[in-house]
Amino acid sequence: MASESGKLWGGRFVGAVDPIMEKFNASIAYDRQLWEVDVQGSKAYSRGLEKAGLLTKAEMAQILQGLDKVAEEWAQGTFKLNPNDEDIHTANERRLKELIGETAGKLHTGRSRNDQVVTDLRLWMRRTCSTLSALLWELIRTMVDRAEAERDVLFPGYTHLQRAQPIRWSHWILSGAIAGNPLGVDRELLRAELNFGAITLNSMDATSERDFVAEFLFWASLCMTHLSRMAEDLILYGTKEFGFVQLSDAYSTGSSLMPQKKNPDSLELIRSKAGRVFGRCAGLLMTLKGLPSTYNKDLQEDKEAVFEVSDTMSAVLQVATGVISTLQIHRENMAQALSPDMLATDLAYYLVRKGMPFRQAHEASGKAVFMAETKGVALNQLSLQELQTISPLFSGDVSRVWDYGHSVEQYGALGGTARSSVDWQIGQVRALLRAQQA
Amino acid sequence: MASESGKLWGGRFVGAVDPIMEKFNASIAYDRQLWEVDVQGSKAYSRGLEKAGLLTKAEMAQILQGLDKVAEEWAQGTFKLNPNDEDIHTANERRLKELIGETAGKLHTGRSRNDQVVTDLRLWMRRTCSTLSALLWELIRTMVDRAEAERDVLFPGYTHLQRAQPIRWSHWILSGAIAGNPLGVDRELLRAELNFGAITLNSMDATSERDFVAEFLFWASLCMTHLSRMAEDLILYGTKEFGFVQLSDAYSTGSSLMPQKKNPDSLELIRSKAGRVFGRCAGLLMTLKGLPSTYNKDLQEDKEAVFEVSDTMSAVLQVATGVISTLQIHRENMAQALSPDMLATDLAYYLVRKGMPFRQAHEASGKAVFMAETKGVALNQLSLQELQTISPLFSGDVSRVWDYGHSVEQYGALGGTARSSVDWQIGQVRALLRAQQA
Amino acid sequence: MASESGKLWGGRFVGAVDPIMEKFNASIAYDRQLWEVDVQGSKAYSRGLEKAGLLTKAEMAQILQGLDKVAEEWAQGTFKLNPNDEDIHTANERRLKELIGETAGKLHTGRSRNDQVVTDLRLWMRRTCSTLSALLWELIRTMVDRAEAERDVLFPGYTHLQRAQPIRWSHWILSGAIAGNPLGVDRELLRAELNFGAITLNSMDATSERDFVAEFLFWASLCMTHLSRMAEDLILYGTKEFGFVQLSDAYSTGSSLMPQKKNPDSLELIRSKAGRVFGRCAGLLMTLKGLPSTYNKDLQEDKEAVFEVSDTMSAVLQVATGVISTLQIHRENMAQALSPDMLATDLAYYLVRKGMPFRQAHEASGKAVFMAETKGVALNQLSLQELQTISPLFSGDVSRVWDYGHSVEQYGALGGTARSSVDWQIGQVRALLRAQQA
Amino acid sequence: MASESGKLWGGRFVGAVDPIMEKFNASIAYDRQLWEVDVQGSKAYSRGLEKAGLLTKAEMAQILQGLDKVAEEWAQGTFKLNPNDEDIHTANERRLKELIGETAGKLHTGRSRNDQVVTDLRLWMRRTCSTLSALLWELIRTMVDRAEAERDVLFPGYTHLQRAQPIRWSHWILSGAIAGNPLGVDRELLRAELNFGAITLNSMDATSERDFVAEFLFWASLCMTHLSRMAEDLILYGTKEFGFVQLSDAYSTGSSLMPQKKNPDSLELIRSKAGRVFGRCAGLLMTLKGLPSTYNKDLQEDKEAVFEVSDTMSAVLQVATGVISTLQIHRENMAQALSPDMLATDLAYYLVRKGMPFRQAHEASGKAVFMAETKGVALNQLSLQELQTISPLFSGDVSRVWDYGHSVEQYGALGGTARSSVDWQIGQVRALLRAQQA
Repeated sequence: MASESGKLWGGRFVGAVDPIMEKFNASIAYDRQLWEVDVQGSKAYSRGLEKAGLLTKAEMAQILQGLDKVAEEWAQGTFKLNPNDEDIHTANERRLKELIGETAGKLHTGRSRNDQVVTDLRLWMRRTCSTLSALLWELIRTMVDRAEAERDVLFPGYTHLQRAQPIRWSHWILSGAIAGNPLGVDRELLRAELNFGAITLNSMDATSERDFVAEFLFWASLCMTHLSRMAEDLILYGTKEFGFVQLSDAYSTGSSLMPQKKNPDSLELIRSKAGRVFGRCAGLLMTLKGLPSTYNKDLQEDKEAVFEVSDTMSAVLQVATGVISTLQIHRENMAQALSPDMLATDLAYYLVRKGMPFRQAHEASGKAVFMAETKGVALNQLSLQELQTISPLFSGDVSRVWDYGHSVEQYGALGGTARSSVDWQIGQVRALLRAQQA
Repeated sequence: MASESGKLWGGRFVGAVDPIMEKFNASIAYDRQLWEVDVQGSKAYSRGLEKAGLLTKAEMAQILQGLDKVAEEWAQGTFKLNPNDEDIHTANERRLKELIGETAGKLHTGRSRNDQVVTDLRLWMRRTCSTLSALLWELIRTMVDRAEAERDVLFPGYTHLQRAQPIRWSHWILSGAIAGNPLGVDRELLRAELNFGAITLNSMDATSERDFVAEFLFWASLCMTHLSRMAEDLILYGTKEFGFVQLSDAYSTGSSLMPQKKNPDSLELIRSKAGRVFGRCAGLLMTLKGLPSTYNKDLQEDKEAVFEVSDTMSAVLQVATGVISTLQIHRENMAQALSPDMLATDLAYYLVRKGMPFRQAHEASGKAVFMAETKGVALNQLSLQELQTISPLFSGDVSRVWDYGHSVEQYGALGGTARSSVDWQIGQVRALLRAQQA
Repeated sequence: MASESGKLWGGRFVGAVDPIMEKFNASIAYDRQLWEVDVQGSKAYSRGLEKAGLLTKAEMAQILQGLDKVAEEWAQGTFKLNPNDEDIHTANERRLKELIGETAGKLHTGRSRNDQVVTDLRLWMRRTCSTLSALLWELIRTMVDRAEAERDVLFPGYTHLQRAQPIRWSHWILSGAIAGNPLGVDRELLRAELNFGAITLNSMDATSERDFVAEFLFWASLCMTHLSRMAEDLILYGTKEFGFVQLSDAYSTGSSLMPQKKNPDSLELIRSKAGRVFGRCAGLLMTLKGLPSTYNKDLQEDKEAVFEVSDTMSAVLQVATGVISTLQIHRENMAQALSPDMLATDLAYYLVRKGMPFRQAHEASGKAVFMAETKGVALNQLSLQELQTISPLFSGDVSRVWDYGHSVEQYGALGGTARSSVDWQIGQVRALLRAQQA
Repeated sequence: MASESGKLWGGRFVGAVDPIMEKFNASIAYDRQLWEVDVQGSKAYSRGLEKAGLLTKAEMAQILQGLDKVAEEWAQGTFKLNPNDEDIHTANERRLKELIGETAGKLHTGRSRNDQVVTDLRLWMRRTCSTLSALLWELIRTMVDRAEAERDVLFPGYTHLQRAQPIRWSHWILSGAIAGNPLGVDRELLRAELNFGAITLNSMDATSERDFVAEFLFWASLCMTHLSRMAEDLILYGTKEFGFVQLSDAYSTGSSLMPQKKNPDSLELIRSKAGRVFGRCAGLLMTLKGLPSTYNKDLQEDKEAVFEVSDTMSAVLQVATGVISTLQIHRENMAQALSPDMLATDLAYYLVRKGMPFRQAHEASGKAVFMAETKGVALNQLSLQELQTISPLFSGDVSRVWDYGHSVEQYGALGGTARSSVDWQIGQVRALLRAQQA
């Protein structure tokens, strides 16, 4: 076997170690964030070693004290990294040895660095998920508060971005808050796993699988997808053309060129982050694909992904909360955007109630819409006589159809846009919030 | 408003309808798979209409009978599609009307096609998840059966694809089976959601969010990532160089050029499908990104993704089960691949048991490895005298270290590779299998 | 070596061949599309064999005739597949042997199926790229035709979806047509490669790399990203709120529930396909990641990806051409959407021309915007006296600023929105179209 | 219009500006890397303003001098950022104003920040592409040097990871180097675009499209996919089981637990980065999907993606060059891995040369392989009599088949593995290297 390791052809590097390889290999630049959980894990492990008879009580005490000192140095910003500290685990072990001497060497009996890496990351994610969860609930609380206060505001519901039927503004808000809710449940699952309530069943699998990372990244991707859709809606509602909402100045920026502009940068950034977060998820799965079992250095990619996504989610959730809590709504524009043709479905239902099968009623109402368009009048300006040319079932009480408030109140089924239904939705989300706090 | 819709400039198409647009728009080519759940959903809905007083009992009976006839035609392959049947919902409604007349028009009172689409897909996925779940459990059962029968076979455990420590073959098998297990749990969650135990909280959200689709696609992606890694291991273990396993002819193919070749096509296909399945997940999330709320036609992309992934998963799980159940192992090659340097960690533990801190013991064992390499002998061929030049703690009982069986038996902690631990893992997975059947 | 290949544990399958594996392995269901290029490739290869002395002239003639017969059967729909025809290459070879006997066996001297697969796919893609290219140029031609005819229509340019400055409608159209142009260039490159002008440098690389597939899928992804953005713009411009454009009925669909609705399904489908196409690109790259060199069965994933993406692109380009060529624009709504605050930048430029540094002018114009907002009047309704309280540089000629036509004409630099500049852009694209036809 | 922007409900933030939003919005933390190109761009722009008569010669001189001073401060590390410097453009403009006063305000006449952002990024990428290109050529040069020096080493070629036919080691090396080559060509294209040889055709498109970013990210993804495959090969070839190559210590690391291990961390990291880089590409395309035309803040995502990918590529290319230039090969293991069954194709060709159609010859050779397996001997140990029971065409000269050197020399066609062909490949790549330097 060749012991010489000099370069054979080409290449820039001479000597025993390639400095670029060292930097490429090292993870200390980002995994130093794990200092606290690394100490926490090592303290737990030293207690385990004592129980197994591999450390005396005195040795354990020495190690615990040393680890506390290491943590103190990190907390106070006095921990000094050496050039050889390639990762947080090496750094903490090196420092422990400086502090307490050879006994430090006993701490790693029977555990590999791969074990440490995965344990530390699980501990770190437990904390992070808890923080993100709190931020998510804060956003949901803000949304439900608004929904409650503004439940009498009506505006157009859209499908395909075409005006469809009148709905309550609160109904829209809750459609976002509710979409957020299952995410909270997902997180609960994740947290449950991270509680280490159950031990890992298989040692090979334990260091090799990164399901908990992949699932976190996917949860974040799906959450961001929802937020990107909410952001898209609000960006549209904030255009001059829609004019339904106005972003607070705190979440807008001006143009360097056009003095009259106020841009919804906050919402655009939220929308854009869906791409970044999902990119990290896609990258990790691609890295995992076809990887031989157990530990391979490829798995080192997990941490930067998790750290970046965690930072992004934290900022996004806080900014979204700020946007929602300071958003102004323009009630008059919302009201003006309601137009009689949005009651065409109600007109069909009117005929259904008089006994006509829905498909026929739908056709009859469509004829009325066409008649109004042809005559150049609004749908509610057709005379009773005109309507009766379409169906004899129309009579004087058809005038009651032309009332937006009456229209929304029809949708009293659970999940609908009637006041009672919206109140029920608010109640459901509030119950989740209470359950969360308990 | 312009009523003329002729072409203004360029373009190939003249007339009221662009035939390519019709095909582009239509989903009947793939959503016909939903025929059964579409009938099922409509039957339930007609009962709901009757209860709400919108259908008489007689009308409901007529509709139910008509729908049964529609289903019968699909089942017998006699259902004839019209050129205007753009989707399965339109086709079934059209046929119902032909069969029972105008009453058919009442079936759609108060529900939109968007409601139908999402309900049908949820119903279809409930069935599919149940089928895939059964196939996944079949794979797990096959793996645990093998693990039990072959638990006395030892072979090298690898990290970084470098020989690390001796492990039981069953330990490797279970690392895959166990990774499979959380997926089963995931599916349970999904199924729970699809049981419709809870109603959807918000009507806008109900037609618009596709979390259940995204989560299914991600579950499949993560499952395939695991299977791609298992396939990679088996492809390597099946090379001439490793020689640990041999694929059954039923899952191999020959070369059109090279007569001596037998290629592991089945495993390569399993590995490759991870890309395809994840591509569908990535595609759906990209489609959802920034989409305005409620229904947009973009959401139509969900179905082909789900159908293709479901077919792929079904084939992959069955082929994987077949591969595992017919795989031959070459015990003698596995045994020969065990080499004394894989016991270097045990040698370090020997010193730890004599009181040396692990880090020093690791170094001492490393010196022994180097000494053996330098002398060109196997690690277990170093004499006691030679070892004692490294540490005086070595004595005659060091010879007990050189026993692979003894080595694996040290790892009796839960999750380890000792016989007792592997038995415990088998027991745990069997318990899951029993719980699954209950 | 074990010759028995029966199942050892579990599994559903008994016998020499697992039918699910056969189906899983076979590619004939989709690669039959390659029949024509497979015959073309084999004809060329048999000529090569004759030149190398491995076929006599008579044998070559026999093979060429047989291959023509095979092609004829495919063309007429009379080719009958056998259950054992796992792919198009096997099928054609089997049929050739039936037609001309043992001489058929000589055709495959010195080439492997892997060679055939990759050659056939390259030939097929050469044809497909040519078709897609023609469709893309047709779309560009349609756009430039419209741009030319409607270059006097002004409407708001938006950034951040906020009204920014007046622009010509043609300027918007050309921003799409021009974005399309580099794609055409890309395709040219691809076609150049597929002309096989150069031979592949390395035989291992030739069967193993799929750059030409990956690059095609990425070209399609990037093209679809552009089209998704154009679709998004047109969906917005078609809302009641914007009201700038109206889709032809041929590219819209109605609602099953709401009689008044007309939905832009064509544009929504175009937007959604960006996800699907990119998903295929992502899937292929994930499949390729970490694959050992030379041929592995994983590479079989390339074909379905290419076929599906090719079909999608073909439909999308044709529908987009149809949409653009039949789109109605509402000039009056476009004109009404122009508002004086969009001339705030022009107001700043007015001051710049009087000698004020731009940053100060920007600030002064911003003050005017604020003054108008505070007074509740339009920006152009501020009196000269009021403007002079902001800057003494304002004088009577400021009234010339309040002219949208004058505003756009300022942007005469190449690429700008002045009539001359838009004409120049039209000329540039027309030159590309002519170059394309030559 | 509401002027108050206080919070209405919930939320954590009180006051005019949300500090988290400020941080979320700011890009200075990463776009400060653009300082040099931002100054370069501004200097060019001020010359343009002078030419257009918007700056006097004196003003231009003042601005150019000021900008040089700004650049000097950045270069010397003395530039001080203000809390309000949200991006590099704002920072440089603010500092310029401090240095030269109000004239600085004239620099931004007629250009928006969006213009600056995209120009700066294009300039930065021109430099980066040039650097990465040099590193890529360095890797290719190293590979071709090795290929030339070691062209007499034979070892098994694999397909499906099964031993296929003997090939030259240099043939494998060149399959990587050649796969690298088209990438170089791609980069050339990119660079050509970045030379700004042509102006952008449309002002809306110019600030809005990010094709040059997407194409760079895809080039990097495809390049990394190739490198991940090369890394996978070398990881396999470096296992104890293959034993063909040995990594230099400079590119390996030991195990914290197992003293005998040496892990190919460098290659594993290269393999893993394919995921990360592609994740960035996927993220950007997802961000772009469905984005309204012209500038939206979402586009800010482009820069961090480009910066990270550029850093990753730079490290990967250098480490790969180092790995290749210091890699040891084990010639004896390579030779021993050649086995007679790999000559089964040659045996078939022997029969072809005696006049048998290839398909029959393939079958006859397959029978010989089976006969040898059944008798438990190597393929070349079958006696002539035994071979003649399979075909009477076998005669004494069959012994010449059993020579690996003779086998590879048959493949003299361009791209093959004969010495002459490998020399030709080396010549081709060297010609590219020379063309590159010219």
